[in-house]
Amino acid sequence: MKRLGIGVWGAGRIGSLHAANIHASAEKVELIAVADPIKRLATAIARRFECRAYHTPAKMLEDESLDGVVIATPTQIHTEHVELAAERRVPMLLEKPIALTMKEADRIVSIIARSRVKFQLGFNRRFDSGYRKAKMMITEGRIGKPILVKTCARDPQPPPDEYIRRSGGIFVDECIHDFDMALWLMNYKAAEVWATGTTLVYPQFARYGDFDNAVAILKFRNGGLGVIEGSRTSKYGYDLRTEVLGDQGEVRVDNVRNDSVELWKGQGGLKQPCPWFLERFAQAYRSEIEEFCDYLVKGGDSPVSAEDGRMALQVALAARESAKKKRVMIIRDQRKTA
Amino acid sequence: MKRLGIGVWGAGRIGSLHAANIHASAEKVELIAVADPIKRLATAIARRFECRAYHTPAKMLEDESLDGVVIATPTQIHTEHVELAAERRVPMLLEKPIALTMKEADRIVSIIARSRVKFQLGFNRRFDSGYRKAKMMITEGRIGKPILVKTCARDPQPPPDEYIRRSGGIFVDECIHDFDMALWLMNYKAAEVWATGTTLVYPQFARYGDFDNAVAILKFRNGGLGVIEGSRTSKYGYDLRTEVLGDQGEVRVDNVRNDSVELWKGQGGLKQPCPWFLERFAQAYRSEIEEFCDYLVKGGDSPVSAEDGRMALQVALAARESAKKKRVMIIRDQRKTA
Amino acid sequence: MKRLGIGVWGAGRIGSLHAANIHASAEKVELIAVADPIKRLATAIARRFECRAYHTPAKMLEDESLDGVVIATPTQIHTEHVELAAERRVPMLLEKPIALTMKEADRIVSIIARSRVKFQLGFNRRFDSGYRKAKMMITEGRIGKPILVKTCARDPQPPPDEYIRRSGGIFVDECIHDFDMALWLMNYKAAEVWATGTTLVYPQFARYGDFDNAVAILKFRNGGLGVIEGSRTSKYGYDLRTEVLGDQGEVRVDNVRNDSVELWKGQGGLKQPCPWFLERFAQAYRSEIEEFCDYLVKGGDSPVSAEDGRMALQVALAARESAKKKRVMIIRDQRKTA
Amino acid sequence: MKRLGIGVWGAGRIGSLHAANIHASAEKVELIAVADPIKRLATAIARRFECRAYHTPAKMLEDESLDGVVIATPTQIHTEHVELAAERRVPMLLEKPIALTMKEADRIVSIIARSRVKFQLGFNRRFDSGYRKAKMMITEGRIGKPILVKTCARDPQPPPDEYIRRSGGIFVDECIHDFDMALWLMNYKAAEVWATGTTLVYPQFARYGDFDNAVAILKFRNGGLGVIEGSRTSKYGYDLRTEVLGDQGEVRVDNVRNDSVELWKGQGGLKQPCPWFLERFAQAYRSEIEEFCDYLVKGGDSPVSAEDGRMALQVALAARESAKKKRVMIIRDQRKTA
Repeated sequence: MKRLGIGVWGAGRIGSLHAANIHASAEKVELIAVADPIKRLATAIARRFECRAYHTPAKMLEDESLDGVVIATPTQIHTEHVELAAERRVPMLLEKPIALTMKEADRIVSIIARSRVKFQLGFNRRFDSGYRKAKMMITEGRIGKPILVKTCARDPQPPPDEYIRRSGGIFVDECIHDFDMALWLMNYKAAEVWATGTTLVYPQFARYGDFDNAVAILKFRNGGLGVIEGSRTSKYGYDLRTEVLGDQGEVRVDNVRNDSVELWKGQGGLKQPCPWFLERFAQAYRSEIEEFCDYLVKGGDSPVSAEDGRMALQVALAARESAKKKRVMIIRDQRKTA
Repeated sequence: MKRLGIGVWGAGRIGSLHAANIHASAEKVELIAVADPIKRLATAIARRFECRAYHTPAKMLEDESLDGVVIATPTQIHTEHVELAAERRVPMLLEKPIALTMKEADRIVSIIARSRVKFQLGFNRRFDSGYRKAKMMITEGRIGKPILVKTCARDPQPPPDEYIRRSGGIFVDECIHDFDMALWLMNYKAAEVWATGTTLVYPQFARYGDFDNAVAILKFRNGGLGVIEGSRTSKYGYDLRTEVLGDQGEVRVDNVRNDSVELWKGQGGLKQPCPWFLERFAQAYRSEIEEFCDYLVKGGDSPVSAEDGRMALQVALAARESAKKKRVMIIRDQRKTA
Repeated sequence: MKRLGIGVWGAGRIGSLHAANIHASAEKVELIAVADPIKRLATAIARRFECRAYHTPAKMLEDESLDGVVIATPTQIHTEHVELAAERRVPMLLEKPIALTMKEADRIVSIIARSRVKFQLGFNRRFDSGYRKAKMMITEGRIGKPILVKTCARDPQPPPDEYIRRSGGIFVDECIHDFDMALWLMNYKAAEVWATGTTLVYPQFARYGDFDNAVAILKFRNGGLGVIEGSRTSKYGYDLRTEVLGDQGEVRVDNVRNDSVELWKGQGGLKQPCPWFLERFAQAYRSEIEEFCDYLVKGGDSPVSAEDGRMALQVALAARESAKKKRVMIIRDQRKTA
Repeated sequence: MKRLGIGVWGAGRIGSLHAANIHASAEKVELIAVADPIKRLATAIARRFECRAYHTPAKMLEDESLDGVVIATPTQIHTEHVELAAERRVPMLLEKPIALTMKEADRIVSIIARSRVKFQLGFNRRFDSGYRKAKMMITEGRIGKPILVKTCARDPQPPPDEYIRRSGGIFVDECIHDFDMALWLMNYKAAEVWATGTTLVYPQFARYGDFDNAVAILKFRNGGLGVIEGSRTSKYGYDLRTEVLGDQGEVRVDNVRNDSVELWKGQGGLKQPCPWFLERFAQAYRSEIEEFCDYLVKGGDSPVSAEDGRMALQVALAARESAKKKRVMIIRDQRKTA
């Protein structure tokens, strides 16, 4: 059986990670090329994984062995690249967030809808075995009717200033995963959001109108509640926790540890969390690529649709606006007009 | 050394509990009487613990051996009873919440301030060894500057309808402990609160304008954040969790279990939470009485002041109003005028 | 209802603890007297708990209000005191271990059998809510047929030299609880034992032919296995763990913590164990007294019989001999001739 | 840089696993061939991973691109294959156990010593991140001087009858990993072993003179103690736990879970263990191959030497004999004469 030929657009941190995972999944898929305007980055990956290097996505699209692309370029140019791939009818896995504005997200949703090209959004957490198990338990009715979802996402250090400036803020950049998780696990749309934030540790966040700690409360259309918490100041390590309370029970995805080691001394027993998202989601990133391949081969519904990305963004932007205006924001359903 | 003579006003569930704890702390303190208008209740306790029974608090105040009273009467008549004890200059331990309205809370604060009688509010959680350890760690600076406090309080079943009707609602009745914990652990006053709730399981809550699940976000005067969550629908047992994130680390008080037993079968490993607050806070209720006695003997600051009770109530009432009006409520500092 | 009048023989650490617990259980039972040849000790307890003080058990036995005694005198004189109480037909709760030699244990079993006086042995762990739950789960068949029991008992510091000298050694003094737990949870008698020990931290143990760390393997009459581990060198705190593997599952009683607090810093998350057996078994010691009272009032089988104590001692002594002789010891059933 | 060319001997379960991991580590290493007398097995792997298939190891040794071999053939023919590779001076990674008899283990140690060919034994647990962390902590002195090591290894189901018959028994087949861990973590040789076993669940073990549950006690040359427990009857899943008590603290490697999910219902909170060693040691098997490659490229000491394998086998065989003869076995140091 011929393996799928996949190219990666963007040779930064996440692009490199996808390239490595495609290369390691060599039974199903072949990494055929990497494209990045920074030649040095593209060439480094090409050498490491024995594939071709291109300057531009457009060039790579002329490559006949291309069966799909992973788009890991800056969010600001997502729309342009989605359009490019859609024109050539090349299936794509697009990194999160889908866009930084609703206008662009709507445009991407519309391009995908019209072109009917296969599209998967890179919400990696959807492919994590723990979150999947939680989702399955909820779907099987094991907690009954979902009432409340709570998430916590804490980064051990802040991103670089330049990144903060362009990131869209903590709700759009960091909490977008949590908004998506909340929508996915509750299986209802959000109706309202109220949010606020603070900057007590890293003044650079305040400079860009952003927060180093933030919380949001969601109300879902079924009356369910959501609490989203994001932090950039977790000195004790990466910390991701999610729980869903239902009327028959609760499911929790606790923070993950790299190992099961405990050291007991006079001061007590010590254990360590997973240091960072790359370790935490190593399996999820691998599974994401595998599911993308399955989707390309077998078809069916997108594992994570453009509409999913648009909804999470809509809630994140509403949270950002709520925190700014200090009032509750109503989430309107724009799907019919999209 | 003569033991302190303590009387209990109110022979309901909490009054009986205090009576039993006073009786068991017999080294330091003697249960001398119980007062309740329902003769049957007062007599039962009096027989069980070999003390006197009175119809009214006023009658008990004539008892010469009385060194202090525990007031566990309905919240609606707290002010009246505080006034009664203050007039006779009898030190008192008053059950939570201090009152159901700010007007009454202000009145109690004012009575205590004027009379200078010893007063301790019955926020039992303040005496729990776990919460105390957390508070001590924060005071010692072990998590650095507090940034965020999160609490969760979930009851395994709803109270009776009659109780719901008079309780003041989930924020004032259940979450008042959490608001107090949040204020105490953060050590800053609240500046703003936003809250919302839902009723998805027990329609009786909606009938009384109350919720069976609710969340509130606090903003403290130092810019810190708080997330308070309360539920009446926890089918898996009693669940109390608190965490405080600081700029150097985090302290957590996890839910408590009655034992350390785990049963491992084909489906996995099973462990059980503490069933209910009486088991969860058995030690705290005992310590509360002991500290009340120490306070009576040694003097000093009140372990939990009337002002502490007033502040928690103020935030709880603001949360209730926020949920009703769907807008953020500003918490004004009324201490100067109180 | 008249309360039971209980006296305590021996005003040392454990005697004082029992006196306090009897005093605190004042609904059911009255502490009427304490006897100790050291007048100062007896008087201190008598004053603290408002009871009488005697120089000798014999004197206390003349007290008409005596319904039962707790014997917490040195193990060397257990037989003498059991005989004394049995002669007067006074029910007794005897501290562990029952004796230091099989000859004396046999004698106690025989005195109790002949006199038919009520007798309860002070294996406090039998009254701990966690161990009780484990026993109940096993009895209910939830782990199927028990195959293997493992226990670990680690003390945070060594006892005084004088205590070590007379204690009977680590198997008889510390592990006797674990041998009893193993026999009780497996519900089979031991058939063989092999044991060994080492002294790597506190040379004083070696001086008395004792060990600071020791392990024993049991084989039960049904073919089941047991692993007993005892340590005097646990620098990280008191550590008691027990597990029973059955052919359908496993039940574990993990080490107990005083609280559910965790502190997360750069080095990881820190939690603390229960510091010492007095905290670990506070509930068990209280329940032990309550069950003794119930046994006195209601009769029925002894909660922990003299025979139970004799069996645990037999295994402990066999373990000690195995470690000395470096060979497996056969445990003979001597009950018929006892 | 030219990648290392590795061949796999044996296309069974473990051989296939190594082939997949070599294939996935494609940056450093190339899977060039598989050899198995069962043509169908070799061809399946060859097709799946696009490499060559051979009937015999000897044939593969003629392949010029071969830089090393992974020997995953039946233990009975380990010596023959080690000899074959050593003759051609091809570095090898040999699956555990090194052999089933001391005579053969001695022969392998001697072949390796004489030929000076690079040799790594496949004790996968040595490459697990948790065990590595524990070893590092011990080496750094964080628990002080090691006193006691305890291991538990429980399989969720028994191997096939045919496997049991040839496996060498539970001590040699299953517990060999634990004997190695104990020796490695304590960093002392074993001086004595006492062991016993039972068969209470699967009668087939008794038919082959084997046990379905077994325990062994080790005494190390420094006086330290070890407790090894192995089971084939763990109905609740795979369960591997190890702890080392030192005179300053303790390090534990707890059983590992696939995810951090907990489901809380009326009966309590439920969590699941890792189902089986393939999931438990996925990372370890990958790291084992990577370290083998590093060893081939950089040289230095073998990550796991033939002598390590011989020592673990010596203890395992002594445990088996102890259980048979019901007496303690002395472990002699034969290294000088080997």
